Amino acid sequence: MSEREQGMTVAELAALVGGRAAGEAEARVWGVASLEAAGDGDVAFVEDEKFFGAARACRASCVIAPEGSASKLEGSGGGVVEAARPKLAFALAARALSPPQKLPGHVHPAAAVAEGARLGEGVYVGAGASVGEGAELGDGTQVHSNCVVGRGVRVGRDCVLRPNVVLYEGVQLGDRVVLHAGVVVGADGFGYVRDPEGVYHKFPQVGTVVIEDDVEVGANSCIDRGALGETRVGRGSKIDNLVQVGHNVWIGERVVIAAQTGISGSTVIESDAIIGGQVGFGDHARVLSGAVIGSQAGVLPGKIVRPGVWWGTPIQPLEEYKRLNALWGRLPRMRDEIQELKRQVKELLARLDEEGK
Amino acid sequence: MSEREQGMTVAELAALVGGRAAGEAEARVWGVASLEAAGDGDVAFVEDEKFFGAARACRASCVIAPEGSASKLEGSGGGVVEAARPKLAFALAARALSPPQKLPGHVHPAAAVAEGARLGEGVYVGAGASVGEGAELGDGTQVHSNCVVGRGVRVGRDCVLRPNVVLYEGVQLGDRVVLHAGVVVGADGFGYVRDPEGVYHKFPQVGTVVIEDDVEVGANSCIDRGALGETRVGRGSKIDNLVQVGHNVWIGERVVIAAQTGISGSTVIESDAIIGGQVGFGDHARVLSGAVIGSQAGVLPGKIVRPGVWWGTPIQPLEEYKRLNALWGRLPRMRDEIQELKRQVKELLARLDEEGK
Amino acid sequence: MSEREQGMTVAELAALVGGRAAGEAEARVWGVASLEAAGDGDVAFVEDEKFFGAARACRASCVIAPEGSASKLEGSGGGVVEAARPKLAFALAARALSPPQKLPGHVHPAAAVAEGARLGEGVYVGAGASVGEGAELGDGTQVHSNCVVGRGVRVGRDCVLRPNVVLYEGVQLGDRVVLHAGVVVGADGFGYVRDPEGVYHKFPQVGTVVIEDDVEVGANSCIDRGALGETRVGRGSKIDNLVQVGHNVWIGERVVIAAQTGISGSTVIESDAIIGGQVGFGDHARVLSGAVIGSQAGVLPGKIVRPGVWWGTPIQPLEEYKRLNALWGRLPRMRDEIQELKRQVKELLARLDEEGK
Repeated sequence: MSEREQGMTVAELAALVGGRAAGEAEARVWGVASLEAAGDGDVAFVEDEKFFGAARACRASCVIAPEGSASKLEGSGGGVVEAARPKLAFALAARALSPPQKLPGHVHPAAAVAEGARLGEGVYVGAGASVGEGAELGDGTQVHSNCVVGRGVRVGRDCVLRPNVVLYEGVQLGDRVVLHAGVVVGADGFGYVRDPEGVYHKFPQVGTVVIEDDVEVGANSCIDRGALGETRVGRGSKIDNLVQVGHNVWIGERVVIAAQTGISGSTVIESDAIIGGQVGFGDHARVLSGAVIGSQAGVLPGKIVRPGVWWGTPIQPLEEYKRLNALWGRLPRMRDEIQELKRQVKELLARLDEEGK
Repeated sequence: MSEREQGMTVAELAALVGGRAAGEAEARVWGVASLEAAGDGDVAFVEDEKFFGAARACRASCVIAPEGSASKLEGSGGGVVEAARPKLAFALAARALSPPQKLPGHVHPAAAVAEGARLGEGVYVGAGASVGEGAELGDGTQVHSNCVVGRGVRVGRDCVLRPNVVLYEGVQLGDRVVLHAGVVVGADGFGYVRDPEGVYHKFPQVGTVVIEDDVEVGANSCIDRGALGETRVGRGSKIDNLVQVGHNVWIGERVVIAAQTGISGSTVIESDAIIGGQVGFGDHARVLSGAVIGSQAGVLPGKIVRPGVWWGTPIQPLEEYKRLNALWGRLPRMRDEIQELKRQVKELLARLDEEGK
Repeated sequence: MSEREQGMTVAELAALVGGRAAGEAEARVWGVASLEAAGDGDVAFVEDEKFFGAARACRASCVIAPEGSASKLEGSGGGVVEAARPKLAFALAARALSPPQKLPGHVHPAAAVAEGARLGEGVYVGAGASVGEGAELGDGTQVHSNCVVGRGVRVGRDCVLRPNVVLYEGVQLGDRVVLHAGVVVGADGFGYVRDPEGVYHKFPQVGTVVIEDDVEVGANSCIDRGALGETRVGRGSKIDNLVQVGHNVWIGERVVIAAQTGISGSTVIESDAIIGGQVGFGDHARVLSGAVIGSQAGVLPGKIVRPGVWWGTPIQPLEEYKRLNALWGRLPRMRDEIQELKRQVKELLARLDEEGK
């Protein structure tokens, strides 16, 4: 079956995304692209009216556009799908037209699967991957080359472990979890106790990690196991590359965390929080649902972060941060004003003394 | 032998940790847990008197508690071990009761061990691991799946290389070194020389890395080889995940470095320093023994950091940082005060001019 | 052929680096070392006159030194090569004397190379490496153990992929590209669209990555694929360890980026920019050619960074940053001055009121 045959008509696409077809509704589409790069068979999208000109000029077979805008896009030649949220509709279209490649159920002969591991239907295990004793892989799960799945790990259905992912012993993944290359789940947390001679002894790191359904974790990120209890990442949360999640951290549902952020032990990030990149969290902090934390911010240990937008180190409400930052830039003027005041007051004093004679 | 048979009595535990048994001294323990989660057979610990209530209510078979506190924990039902440092005693108990699993000496048939490599007694090499020509692995060392041990590498006794660790050619590890998944030791340092056309040529990165005994390095951390000399991590130091250690860095003994910190070339961190997460060090800095550097701090190139607690970018003594930070928050008031002073002085001047007429 | 036979004379070295030989021009050299560690057969270098004493005392067989300095180094015993840029000449000497080891063309029997992959002459593929369907590896390219080269990837000539590198489907590498251990190229960018229920849907990440000739990327760094278009790293750019390059980022030629820096989506860094470590870039920023950005700096989304040296968060010109930072330290004095002014003005007012009676 060719790509074209796998595609759909503009009308079918409109139905899929809950939109309304206009223009060439019977045109076929089988790919997605940007307005600039789109060609025959591609779907593109436009949200902002200032790009309508580009949309009219583009060569896509279908443009997804805001409701009521089809008449403004007439020049485009292809079909139009009006949708309440064009970008969302485009994402759904892409999932239908360019679904992530699903590898066929198959255990590569160069994989090392323990006898006691249990593999569901249609599981793929790539060359060089290891699956440990007692591990379970749910139906349709794909374990790419050179992944290492430890003893007693439980992975749900339709998960994708990209190459070189490491799951330490006993960690648990829900369904449809995607871990990008080099992710490490369940390494020991960073906890030591110092003895009177100054030597560090490992505090037990014998807990586990639970990653719920529909979580995606970016390349080379690390999620440590709990010291005694568990580290948890809630359903639908999305974590970018090179992120550090410490032991016993609890991340709620639909939390978004950008690249290179680090979260110290036992910190809680409640559902629907949004965290920028390179943010640092001290231990035992708590981010309440609805908080948004800007990139490079620093959250002190134990801090409670309320809903709203936060910035800076230590974090402050964004408006406060902006106000203070503007004043920071005014410091030279403030210093000059103080000098001028000192001069004037000195002169006043002299004058009074003079007159007082 | 069951877990229970592998366990010990409360009295034996007291002897092991140098404490004093009270209550049910003959109760058997075989695991560790938090006060909240502990059940039959578990050891828990309590340090702070405010958790004594929780300790009395807990279901552990043994609670390790501060000296002189056994009488206050009578309700707990199980045994009590009084110890000078309960958390340390708990760590030692955990090591005895839940020692890290030791894989049996075995070279997996799917490992690629060079003919000229020398393996000690009881060495484990997992599936997909490579051990290069001339490499040495000391007795009892475990090289997990998909690790790559380069040519001429020397690894001491009882080391643990978790999956996907990479040791470049010629690096040296002492005894009991633990490297978590994805650690890279000995990659080229970041050094280039620019020619008149602006092209960068690699400065030779032909030194090595020496990691001394009892060092632990967290997942996906990188320790670069020396350019000409060596990069060194001293005995008993502990490094967290995603840390970058540049070429020719010298880290002393019992240094602790939290996640995502980066150390530029030739910087020295003396023994017993404590470094927070996401700290950045310029090159050729020197941290003296006894210094503590807070998370996200920035240390300028060449800076000497004396003993004490430091914070901020560029780093300052914590007390100074706090004082200045408090003043930062007072900037709006200071600006208002300056405005008010300007108004008053202007008025004074006008009044004097008026009166001077 | 022994190392000595592979070496060269001081006179030959001078010719190679475009310098002038002096002293023992027929001495043979076959290695490089620092002034302190150098011995028989080694080349060392000195640039700064303050190290001339050390250079005279050193035991190298050849010292590369600034033009006109040979007479000042007479005590050194060995040869001297005068060069306009001694450090550059030393780098070139090192490349000639200690070239990176080239593994012989060979596909290890424990590698998994797809039938449809095309391998050039002299390609090395290590144990446990996978090369996917339709992938191409140019002549002389080395794919070390446990690398994973995805379907349809194109790698040029004489590239080196150190162990555990992952190239996702379809990415392209030019010639002489060096990727250190654990590098991930082409993982999905971090882009989601939220639906009215708050659920995140993946924005399509179906673009690619192009890495041009002579790029080097440090261990465990990540370069994400474009969402719809491409992410690109230009010829001769050098990226350190643990760096994050987001989707659709464009990096020009001869750009240098130090460790742990993170670059958000669609940001452009023009040729010849120099970026410190732990810098954070918001999305859609643009760094113009000739800009130098200090470590830990923060660049806001959409910011245009002009040529010059920049520092701080949000970034400012270095001179401005220094001036403001100095004033920050003066805040306590400014506060005191304001208090003193308030006291004086109050006194003045009282005095005037008194006199006005």
